Amino acid sequence: MIKKYKKKFEYSYSLGVYPTIELLKHLPEKVNVVYISEKATSNKGIEQIRSLCRKNKVNLRTSADLINRITAKGNVFALGVFQKYEQTLDKEKNHIVLVNPSTAGNVGTIMRTMLGFRVRNLAVIKPAVDIFQPEVIRSSMGSIFQINIGYFDSFKEYQAQHSQNSFYTFMLEGEMLLPDVQFKSPYSLVFGNEGAGLPKKFINIGTSVTIPQSKMIDSLNLAISVGITLYEAEGKNTEV
Amino acid sequence: MIKKYKKKFEYSYSLGVYPTIELLKHLPEKVNVVYISEKATSNKGIEQIRSLCRKNKVNLRTSADLINRITAKGNVFALGVFQKYEQTLDKEKNHIVLVNPSTAGNVGTIMRTMLGFRVRNLAVIKPAVDIFQPEVIRSSMGSIFQINIGYFDSFKEYQAQHSQNSFYTFMLEGEMLLPDVQFKSPYSLVFGNEGAGLPKKFINIGTSVTIPQSKMIDSLNLAISVGITLYEAEGKNTEV
Repeated sequence: MIKKYKKKFEYSYSLGVYPTIELLKHLPEKVNVVYISEKATSNKGIEQIRSLCRKNKVNLRTSADLINRITAKGNVFALGVFQKYEQTLDKEKNHIVLVNPSTAGNVGTIMRTMLGFRVRNLAVIKPAVDIFQPEVIRSSMGSIFQINIGYFDSFKEYQAQHSQNSFYTFMLEGEMLLPDVQFKSPYSLVFGNEGAGLPKKFINIGTSVTIPQSKMIDSLNLAISVGITLYEAEGKNTEV
Repeated sequence: MIKKYKKKFEYSYSLGVYPTIELLKHLPEKVNVVYISEKATSNKGIEQIRSLCRKNKVNLRTSADLINRITAKGNVFALGVFQKYEQTLDKEKNHIVLVNPSTAGNVGTIMRTMLGFRVRNLAVIKPAVDIFQPEVIRSSMGSIFQINIGYFDSFKEYQAQHSQNSFYTFMLEGEMLLPDVQFKSPYSLVFGNEGAGLPKKFINIGTSVTIPQSKMIDSLNLAISVGITLYEAEGKNTEV
């Protein structure tokens, strides 16, 4: 019996055809069951879901209304139920570090952008939005299933475990401007909360960096800041 | 009597303290009335709203529950009611052109990013999301009130009116990579719809450009693409 998602659940949902395909491709062993809406027309995406379920021996069911029961959005034609999982970050790889992120859509968009620039390790410093809530998965377009995500109780804990990385902290009063930074890999790019940014004390950690921006806005959106930084750090090396 | 927003209304709402301050600062003559929630504590933002209303002789009321009546989000402490307006784009200035944008959050985030890079003219090619819906205004953080927005029935119509601009069309099969482009001002940066991107025929308009990105994702998010492009075109010149 499928219920509206709650944080305490040991499972979550991929909502939509594309995220469900990504789930089945990258983490089929975590999938309990996949539902396809009765209203789904038999297009290429739906066929791919059927085929991936067959190949991975995943239980596939047709649903009349239970997809509607767990989401207000009317245009969801497929849904995967998967067990939540824990991961450890790759040592000496490039990382994005989000300190207390609070907006699901931002975090999902950041995952999608990370994968676009081949940076596949994400550290989340608590308190933070629930990474497994369906809105994160959906806005990641399923990229979450190809990203290593590590949770940390404090930034100090993360820092201690990954002290071999070069740290760059993003704040409006940074000592360097982004276009002037030569990123040294493996790096950790550290971003603060959507509302408050990084606390002032982060200016003493690694290299503090500012993205040039006018004073007509409070600050750039968090996901936009991460995207611009990844482009500056990786975009020139990313094969198309 | 305030009602839940509908596209056919001749007015719309700024939801939240920050967007309402921006509305009062930049377009006071369009404001019918401002409401402050009974639950709002008297902080700096609320005081600024009171002061701007006094200065601009805008009617200010305290509301018990009517803010809740028009928004599901519980944390809205201020609301401005303003008349919708029409604008014309500045000739021979830099423009962002969105062809058939469909997601309110993306369009709002794009406005905020544009202002961050001092690009203040936005062309919207119909059909498109309603630019005045409160979700756009909110995700723009009120930046919308400092952006010129022009609506066009077709890209051809826009192109005819602004043929003096240099056109850059963003698509996955572009002829140039973004880091190699030298943008020539005044320019028009043209982006397609969130799902479909620009139609193939746009490859023959101006210079077609690709943002380097891995094949592990379908494409970058629209707002992220605009943000990265504005950083490349303007970020090195933007005063902090």
